[in-house]
Amino acid sequence: MMEVAMHQHLSTDVGFLLSRASGLVVRATNAALAEHGLRVRQYSVLTLAGEAERGVSQRELATLLGLDPSQVVLLVDELAAAGLVERRPSATDRRTNLVVATGRGRDVQERAALAAADALAGTLSRLDPAQCDLLRTLLAEVVAPAG
Amino acid sequence: MMEVAMHQHLSTDVGFLLSRASGLVVRATNAALAEHGLRVRQYSVLTLAGEAERGVSQRELATLLGLDPSQVVLLVDELAAAGLVERRPSATDRRTNLVVATGRGRDVQERAALAAADALAGTLSRLDPAQCDLLRTLLAEVVAPAG
Repeated sequence: MMEVAMHQHLSTDVGFLLSRASGLVVRATNAALAEHGLRVRQYSVLTLAGEAERGVSQRELATLLGLDPSQVVLLVDELAAAGLVERRPSATDRRTNLVVATGRGRDVQERAALAAADALAGTLSRLDPAQCDLLRTLLAEVVAPAG
Repeated sequence: MMEVAMHQHLSTDVGFLLSRASGLVVRATNAALAEHGLRVRQYSVLTLAGEAERGVSQRELATLLGLDPSQVVLLVDELAAAGLVERRPSATDRRTNLVVATGRGRDVQERAALAAADALAGTLSRLDPAQCDLLRTLLAEVVAPAG
């Protein structure tokens, strides 16, 4: 462990490579999403709000996205102002608001998803499909909740 | 391509997983580096400044780190103020300043590297060594310069 740390160059550090690869994807995706009026984090919230029929709570969004609750509130505010999501009281817990994609939000999300997928494919173009699957599997293992 | 984009959930999107995994590593590494007075980007600049005997130009730092030149200038300013790096005129091009780690900077970097490696190992603890190597190889391919 110590030997590795002392002699490893930054360019081969998995943490550094993760950060660089993520940065490339975010940059390409933001560029692709611009014409849909979205940035990556807004797109992620919109997508999650559209995936669950009943919507998703802001607390769930914070957990799923690894963001602070205050950041999620801002993102939902922005999407709500654009008419892409709505906050609705939960049927089972009236103290909780659920974030739900509007019809317009679903339309925008579908088009944005195509643009985001293209941007991702461009960034990962040096990997073949099997390598992409492998990368997905390894990353899913890293981000899986502990326990 | 379109089919994939339309039916894929965010939680299986490689771009989303990259962002989440990178976020986990950055958070753990920032926590580990705090006692060394550094954050991840400062640590990365300090490490690169120490890797090359003659130092590294701010332009090279921007390319290697995927940052704007103005961000790099700020990071170097912070590290210089802390006495961890110095700017020295290049011997071959006097218009270019090279960023060089000071003796104290090298000491701090060595201790910080151990802390960062521990934080990374903790974040990747669900992967065995072969899987870590595989992840490194795939990410290096993604971030390799085009051409």
